[in-house]
Amino acid sequence: MENANLLEGMRVVEAAAFVAAPLGGMTLAQMGAEVIRIDALGGGLDYRRWPVTRDGTSLFWAGLNKGKKSVTLDLGSPEGREFAMALIAAPGEDAGMLLTNFPPRGWLDHEKLRERRSDLIQLTVQGDRHGGSAVDYTINPRMGLPYLTGSEAVETAVNHVLPAWDLVTGQMAAAGLLAAERHRRRRGAGQHVKLALEDVALAAVGSLGFLAEAQLGQARGRHGNHLFGAFGHDFATSDGVRVMVVGLTGKQWRSLCDALAMGDEIAVIAQRTGLDLAREGNRFIAREEIAAVVARWMGARPFADVATQLDRHGVCWGKYQTVGQLVREDASCSLANPMFGEVDQPGVGHLVAPGLPLDFSAVARRPVQPAPRLGADTEQVLCSVLGVDSAEFGRLHDRGVVGG
Amino acid sequence: MENANLLEGMRVVEAAAFVAAPLGGMTLAQMGAEVIRIDALGGGLDYRRWPVTRDGTSLFWAGLNKGKKSVTLDLGSPEGREFAMALIAAPGEDAGMLLTNFPPRGWLDHEKLRERRSDLIQLTVQGDRHGGSAVDYTINPRMGLPYLTGSEAVETAVNHVLPAWDLVTGQMAAAGLLAAERHRRRRGAGQHVKLALEDVALAAVGSLGFLAEAQLGQARGRHGNHLFGAFGHDFATSDGVRVMVVGLTGKQWRSLCDALAMGDEIAVIAQRTGLDLAREGNRFIAREEIAAVVARWMGARPFADVATQLDRHGVCWGKYQTVGQLVREDASCSLANPMFGEVDQPGVGHLVAPGLPLDFSAVARRPVQPAPRLGADTEQVLCSVLGVDSAEFGRLHDRGVVGG
Repeated sequence: MENANLLEGMRVVEAAAFVAAPLGGMTLAQMGAEVIRIDALGGGLDYRRWPVTRDGTSLFWAGLNKGKKSVTLDLGSPEGREFAMALIAAPGEDAGMLLTNFPPRGWLDHEKLRERRSDLIQLTVQGDRHGGSAVDYTINPRMGLPYLTGSEAVETAVNHVLPAWDLVTGQMAAAGLLAAERHRRRRGAGQHVKLALEDVALAAVGSLGFLAEAQLGQARGRHGNHLFGAFGHDFATSDGVRVMVVGLTGKQWRSLCDALAMGDEIAVIAQRTGLDLAREGNRFIAREEIAAVVARWMGARPFADVATQLDRHGVCWGKYQTVGQLVREDASCSLANPMFGEVDQPGVGHLVAPGLPLDFSAVARRPVQPAPRLGADTEQVLCSVLGVDSAEFGRLHDRGVVGG
Repeated sequence: MENANLLEGMRVVEAAAFVAAPLGGMTLAQMGAEVIRIDALGGGLDYRRWPVTRDGTSLFWAGLNKGKKSVTLDLGSPEGREFAMALIAAPGEDAGMLLTNFPPRGWLDHEKLRERRSDLIQLTVQGDRHGGSAVDYTINPRMGLPYLTGSEAVETAVNHVLPAWDLVTGQMAAAGLLAAERHRRRRGAGQHVKLALEDVALAAVGSLGFLAEAQLGQARGRHGNHLFGAFGHDFATSDGVRVMVVGLTGKQWRSLCDALAMGDEIAVIAQRTGLDLAREGNRFIAREEIAAVVARWMGARPFADVATQLDRHGVCWGKYQTVGQLVREDASCSLANPMFGEVDQPGVGHLVAPGLPLDFSAVARRPVQPAPRLGADTEQVLCSVLGVDSAEFGRLHDRGVVGG
């Protein structure tokens, strides 16, 4: 185990807002790359994004920019844009990487930037493949999922609260930049990589079989909290705690049957329905009958007994809890989990924050870094990367060309 | 633009099932890596996963293994496991990469594999950081999201139907392998990378501010289909079509106000509430009043007029549709989108399937590949990678040690 950064030497300039692109940049920063986020003076489009503290500091911005350097420039002025372009195209074998979700025009025009650095790698996250405007919340309805979410009784669409497409896109952006950097190392060529949020969503519903199912004319219904294609549902214990139990694999199913000692009742269901319940699909067909048996068992016991029994038999299960309970009561969401660390977040104060889920054995786990104060690294970056001296920086700062 | 594969020369062995790890392997395959999926004779745990065709062929398996090679071995026999370990540790500068979501024991024991290849890169996807059993559907309830999903009237938990945590984990696995391969190229060292589904979920809810919000004692409520922290909601047109409209950024909000010519009504709301609705957070506070105005406008027009008017003003919006409508009516989900291609999927037949969302300008877009027939590449891989000749392969096949 060394203390080296996994992505030592890599420098990425990020010009972005909201979730996908900033998450991709944060992932690279948490792997050890130097990620320089450029914002306009006063902050970008996401600088006030909710959730916010009572005095308006964005917890969203703080969460998605951990471990980055923050540079602020007057992007409305040619001089400010010149510094931005110079940073993007600055020399360095493993520099010359740009991550953005802004239209590739003006100071982000790929061809103009390539005139400054011919092997530039630029990854542009877009709404759709034509560069049109789209966000997670307008793409998700088109994927059909809101009509498959919620109880069978629900007649309208149910939006997801997790911007899942943004999260997937952010990680694909990180992977795309790493793949393009490998190609550049081998071939010497940079490129412009495009990644459309809409395409990420379409590829995912295709990968999971939703599209093929529909192409074959097999319309999937709305199944409430049932796990599609096998057995899985939520149940209330006698003291009102809710748990999700899953019998997807044969092992998981046998563990569940053993834990609840429901073998005889399952055999009766198998006989009555003529279904071999050792096959996952048949467990889905018989889901209501199976759920009735599980519900009776769960409803007759307090959560403590349920948890003990399920764990004793290695059942795959999870407890429903609020975010408040997750933060207050779940050891996995605390410093007991080495992924978490304490940070002093500018404008917010003391927080216990998560770092990178990837645990690389070749390097020491990096301490969790807070997000920077907006513009905090402007002078250090302009000095170290562009050779601006502090007297010149002072003049630029006085004239409002640079922040910090 | 060259015809080279972006990840030319990279070889990854995948021993995995279900979504996360197979998706990570598929992403690398679609970028041009040679990804060899090893399964037991007869297929792995996910070989029958729903959705399935009427004769039981898994559309799920077909969707998550596109572009891979399939090798089947009798993993219950020492001889079969020996071939598996030999494939994982086979020579080749850019080989020696293993992606799995099985317990790193037996033939997947990292230390044993390192004795065969000291610079092996192994990435193990696990349920939790201790290697415990957990799946997307048991982790999501613990994150608090089911209690934030659905209408305010809903009193119970609403599960997501999209295995979002699996999808994010799969892309992080691809990024993690690429980052580890860069490190090996620079330092010569392999490693064992671990990635827990639970940690991926915890890091994400942390990145989005959910955890900090709760740590500060600001409990978020359930907001139905409202976009949290700004304006966004779903509305029905006069002919019963449902659309999602978003006014997250100032530009999006102004476009919406212009498209609906609702400036005066918004001004009245601003005056009555004393809220500056140019600030996104205030639009969330006044969401019900704003939604009432938008609902009246939407309800008075058929979808065709609504779409025309919203597009004319560049409003950020999306139409709710079923997966069936997506497949039949949405051009983005057809061959009109270059990400899609026609494949002849073994056991299924003709499908229009999506490829990789990442569009790399340095290489030609790869044609969409189907998933292989189970075991289809066993002889070719054992011959090309391990030097097994066809006579020997025939004997192994007769003895049931290898499939294909």
